[in-house]
Amino acid sequence: MGSVTGSLDRAGCEWLQYDYGSALMAGTRPASFTMWRYRKLLPVPDGPVRYPMPIGGTPLLSVPALRKASGTPHLWIKDETRNPSASNKDRATALVIEDGLRRGVGTITTASTGNAAVATAVGAAAAGMRAVIFVSTDCQPDKLALMTQARAWVFRVPAGYAAAVDLSRAAARAFGWLDRNTGANPFTIEAKKTVAFEVWEQLGRRLPDAMIVPVGDGPTLVALDKGFAELVSCGLATRQPRLIGVQAESCQPLVRAWSGVPAGPADLNPAGTAADGIAVVRPAIGDAVLDAVRRSGGSLLAVTESALLSAVATLAGRAGVGAEPAGAAALAGLECAVERGLVDRLETTVLLVTGREVKAGGAPPGAGRVAVAQGLDEVERALAGEC
Amino acid sequence: MGSVTGSLDRAGCEWLQYDYGSALMAGTRPASFTMWRYRKLLPVPDGPVRYPMPIGGTPLLSVPALRKASGTPHLWIKDETRNPSASNKDRATALVIEDGLRRGVGTITTASTGNAAVATAVGAAAAGMRAVIFVSTDCQPDKLALMTQARAWVFRVPAGYAAAVDLSRAAARAFGWLDRNTGANPFTIEAKKTVAFEVWEQLGRRLPDAMIVPVGDGPTLVALDKGFAELVSCGLATRQPRLIGVQAESCQPLVRAWSGVPAGPADLNPAGTAADGIAVVRPAIGDAVLDAVRRSGGSLLAVTESALLSAVATLAGRAGVGAEPAGAAALAGLECAVERGLVDRLETTVLLVTGREVKAGGAPPGAGRVAVAQGLDEVERALAGEC
Repeated sequence: MGSVTGSLDRAGCEWLQYDYGSALMAGTRPASFTMWRYRKLLPVPDGPVRYPMPIGGTPLLSVPALRKASGTPHLWIKDETRNPSASNKDRATALVIEDGLRRGVGTITTASTGNAAVATAVGAAAAGMRAVIFVSTDCQPDKLALMTQARAWVFRVPAGYAAAVDLSRAAARAFGWLDRNTGANPFTIEAKKTVAFEVWEQLGRRLPDAMIVPVGDGPTLVALDKGFAELVSCGLATRQPRLIGVQAESCQPLVRAWSGVPAGPADLNPAGTAADGIAVVRPAIGDAVLDAVRRSGGSLLAVTESALLSAVATLAGRAGVGAEPAGAAALAGLECAVERGLVDRLETTVLLVTGREVKAGGAPPGAGRVAVAQGLDEVERALAGEC
Repeated sequence: MGSVTGSLDRAGCEWLQYDYGSALMAGTRPASFTMWRYRKLLPVPDGPVRYPMPIGGTPLLSVPALRKASGTPHLWIKDETRNPSASNKDRATALVIEDGLRRGVGTITTASTGNAAVATAVGAAAAGMRAVIFVSTDCQPDKLALMTQARAWVFRVPAGYAAAVDLSRAAARAFGWLDRNTGANPFTIEAKKTVAFEVWEQLGRRLPDAMIVPVGDGPTLVALDKGFAELVSCGLATRQPRLIGVQAESCQPLVRAWSGVPAGPADLNPAGTAADGIAVVRPAIGDAVLDAVRRSGGSLLAVTESALLSAVATLAGRAGVGAEPAGAAALAGLECAVERGLVDRLETTVLLVTGREVKAGGAPPGAGRVAVAQGLDEVERALAGEC
């Protein structure tokens, strides 16, 4: 295949030549691999998928250089940074919006200061839906710019993140909007469980021995548990992989709960870590995380800031994978897990890289769509100007 | 499909239930869609592909919300931001490295201050190869950080970008490295032509009427020309789409050449545009660009800064696509092309979105791998300390 027959000069540019014929092109259609592949296990009725961007079907990378450098010959990376807004949050967003498109709901809301908010803004833009995001007033300007560029409405809530969640959920109830809040909508778990199905298929319909996962609010890990459990329920697997959750040392409520020494508020410093995506003081579905980890025979562990930053560099330098610190937490946890005997270097272990940070592209932040709100009336007034 | 039979409370988290059975899971293997699909038209001998990351197979988006907003019902976006380092440069990098892996060459070099350098660093890291990048001393710190995080060696060349290109090419010759410089290695065109094949297949083995493309050095547009020409050579198409190249108003050497009023050095201000990826004063294969545009019946046009930034916002807000200004140039050019009668709103038109900017993930920039060099001897000395 691919035999070059010569070379041609095209206005100073060298063009390789082949023995041209229609047989050089594949006859079949190029396949697509997206999470809709699993729609028999998703709450999606028959009929064409309306969501307009391909989601999921992310690579499971064999990372030869990282395997060699770390002495883990059966290590894999599930690279969720390849989703449209560069994180695994795109899966949940897509399923919630697909449901809304089918039911004729025109607005989606969530509270989040991070990837979920950006994914919601981007997904809504692609689907021609309105996104209404609630953030605390200390939300990063870069993330605000990504949201407003995608034409989302963003309400900054002075009373902080918990109040933002309450307001988003109240708005969803009051106005009949789609509620994409973590832990509030079971569709978010349904969508994210497809990562488990993909890993199983990409390993040749085999399960890994262990999967290491960053943990903030918890849905990513809990969804993997559900996905692997469903493979067992379907008679396609006989056991589930051990799930190992990773948190940042400065904010590790679930690691502390796991070890039987619950953390008080003074023990949790979310601002103390660069892994803002997992720096959650009160995980939305923490009990479900502890339950999933226990049933899987896994564990929870905390990693230092230097381990997180070093993992970012190692992913870039040994695997060609760009990750934000929260996205690199699984690799940071790997060494720790090996040292504690939670994972053997020779086992088949999958690291979930959940996301990377992207730039807002230099466009103006669209400040007209950012407002402060403390109650539903202010939200309603701000949106009233818009059709 | 996807009929939910009930709901289960799992430690406070709602789990939807299905009528489980193995038939709910697809029986076939999930397909992969990468540029290696076209290897009969690539200079890749038989045998397994060694490059460890999937490349290409990027989505052709139907952008319903953008179509509606812009009155272009047959508009498509080919979204190259979905490649591993978030730009179309990953294709060329992958093919050059694949060749090196087969021939046992352990180092790849390029000069570039932008996406090609980042793609080279990332691709080399994944392949366990050494990358040696040459940049001018005004290279952005963010891009330097991405390169050094990926363990590339970066040499800053005080005499500027043209000298960096010369030094990179001299080093490739002297040390037997892979030369990935734009216009120097025909494999870069070979790899990038796969975008044309993908568009054709994704449209159902049909060609668009026109394709609009950002133009800097030129290989992206010239490679599309070659890809479409090869479809004709293979007997799979009868004509080529019109190619419309877009440059930034402040640095439009090819638009000026096209219009018969060549630009002098004083007319070109690469620092005057946010679209740094296409702000090239002396395009490496400019003659080939002019030739390709002419033969295709296309054109070249320049867009203002405000049109570029507005295109970034429109891509985010109407298509859910994140792009850097250079990556958004095709959309900026669309309105202009319609006004001039180069494209009709009802035609099938594909916009190529070439890339987006990503962040370096907060990890230390690895300054130990950045050095200043004016000649090969300094390069050799700096690298001598390593393996």
